[in-house]
Amino acid sequence: MQGLHLIGDLYGCRCDGKFLHDRSLLRTQCIRFCKEAGLGVVGDFFYQFGEAGVTGTVLLAESHLAIHTWPETLSVTLDVYVCNYSQDNSAKATKVFDRLCALLNPEEVIPNHVMRGKTDEAPLVTSLSPPSLRVS
Amino acid sequence: MQGLHLIGDLYGCRCDGKFLHDRSLLRTQCIRFCKEAGLGVVGDFFYQFGEAGVTGTVLLAESHLAIHTWPETLSVTLDVYVCNYSQDNSAKATKVFDRLCALLNPEEVIPNHVMRGKTDEAPLVTSLSPPSLRVS
Repeated sequence: MQGLHLIGDLYGCRCDGKFLHDRSLLRTQCIRFCKEAGLGVVGDFFYQFGEAGVTGTVLLAESHLAIHTWPETLSVTLDVYVCNYSQDNSAKATKVFDRLCALLNPEEVIPNHVMRGKTDEAPLVTSLSPPSLRVS
Repeated sequence: MQGLHLIGDLYGCRCDGKFLHDRSLLRTQCIRFCKEAGLGVVGDFFYQFGEAGVTGTVLLAESHLAIHTWPETLSVTLDVYVCNYSQDNSAKATKVFDRLCALLNPEEVIPNHVMRGKTDEAPLVTSLSPPSLRVS
């Protein structure tokens, strides 16, 4: 369960407004960035609040991405959380986070990067690894 | 965008194992606790990794809940994030977080509670509030 949770609160996003307004476009970018970083997408749900923004999550084999947009204030909150259960996925999470920040192009980011799990956690016991898609 | 993000990494969950194993049961509880706390559920997605656990999110008008379970180690990671855009939803988030912890009954919780957004953020401008379900 040890992992890296990248949190960013983005202000003054100077991207094309369609990425803050349009559920389908934002969803496509989020999923693409996760896949291109090598993360395992197992599902997603994106909801559009009319013209008032989008809220969405991408469920990952490694944990999740969550994003909420406020077009009227050009603001976005972003979470990319990966567990490092069987391998260190931190670089992949950072890549997704950075690509979304580059796309949204905020004037300011309030970051909170949380190292999750116990520091004295037992190392991975390989025999416990499930034979499924889960790779976190 | 100011808000409260409650993060908990739960170890040694002593609940009935079905809540760690069964997508449908866990989903039902998460949605029920959100609704009973007065949060606005706009969608959800829960995925089952065979016998290896469940990963899921509940999308809220106020932001999101995310949960990931590892039945083989009796571990769960939990996020409840609410924005306080038009009202303070912190008590509602705390209620959901506490009810899920009570259900899962962990021996140990590693908490990380993050106050999100800028501290000098401008107060709500009521005219900007969207006439939609969004209430965060």
